[in-house]
Amino acid sequence: MNSIPTFMPPLEVASPVSGQDFRDAMAKLAAAVTIVTTDGPAGRAGFAATAVCSVSDSPATLLVCLNRSSSVFDTVMENGVACVNVLSSEHETLSSLFGGKTPVYQRFAAAEWQTGVTGSPMLANAMVSFDCMIASTVDVGSHRVLFLTVQALSQDPGEEALLYYRRSYRHLR
Amino acid sequence: MNSIPTFMPPLEVASPVSGQDFRDAMAKLAAAVTIVTTDGPAGRAGFAATAVCSVSDSPATLLVCLNRSSSVFDTVMENGVACVNVLSSEHETLSSLFGGKTPVYQRFAAAEWQTGVTGSPMLANAMVSFDCMIASTVDVGSHRVLFLTVQALSQDPGEEALLYYRRSYRHLR
Repeated sequence: MNSIPTFMPPLEVASPVSGQDFRDAMAKLAAAVTIVTTDGPAGRAGFAATAVCSVSDSPATLLVCLNRSSSVFDTVMENGVACVNVLSSEHETLSSLFGGKTPVYQRFAAAEWQTGVTGSPMLANAMVSFDCMIASTVDVGSHRVLFLTVQALSQDPGEEALLYYRRSYRHLR
Repeated sequence: MNSIPTFMPPLEVASPVSGQDFRDAMAKLAAAVTIVTTDGPAGRAGFAATAVCSVSDSPATLLVCLNRSSSVFDTVMENGVACVNVLSSEHETLSSLFGGKTPVYQRFAAAEWQTGVTGSPMLANAMVSFDCMIASTVDVGSHRVLFLTVQALSQDPGEEALLYYRRSYRHLR
């Protein structure tokens, strides 16, 4: 197992808001759709994610929130690397594959990939790909927040972004 | 000063990517626009933010990334509370006010606000407002990641979301 430092900050503040109400409210926060991939000693894995955001440009760092009970969780953590591929409108079907129960080899067979400097698969025509090392992580509630330090960037001229809003895919020119 | 626990996970992984290249790439990650507000012993403050995402529904928790050199930083941390107001297309001008150098009283004078259970100002016609306590924080590079536990929700029927993509405002029905 990779020795990535993990912190568990106390969440001593309770919430009176139900999970269902929270998820319904969060559906109104539109977000770009990404596929996060990994490869290495623990094998290849990938999942669709919208809980992604920029953290700092020094060092270039973004974050991804990952459910600790997710089927890909152990693979991502053991490899210690991840590539965040930002999707364009042509990737709607691919996103659904990576967000469902499709076996790993079928997910990756549906698109073309290059190997990034970290060994993670980079989606050949992603709007932008951030190939990253996992620098550290924090556990909050059901999820682990991964802080990813960017090792390489790859960009494609695609102009139309794929978004998720009110539980549907949307396109944005 | 509020006693919110703060962690500083090591970021021993360097990035070969320049700040400018990272920001240019991040501009292609479309994001919803929010105004994050606070009020309390340290006074009222608010700022526009796109680095916001869902973390966990148990307890209902979201996160916001805030530059530690921001003018509102001390006020937010001392109050220990924050409300994340998700904007609709009608709030484009308001967002620019809260993202610029406008004095605090002028920012808040440009819209109607209600007082949330935490004391934070809730934007009267936000698409959705998450009134929160800051449960804990993590410092990463130039920024502090605030983990916010939701104390109350307020929603408005507005249908068109305000987005930021490639350094411009966009609308999404």
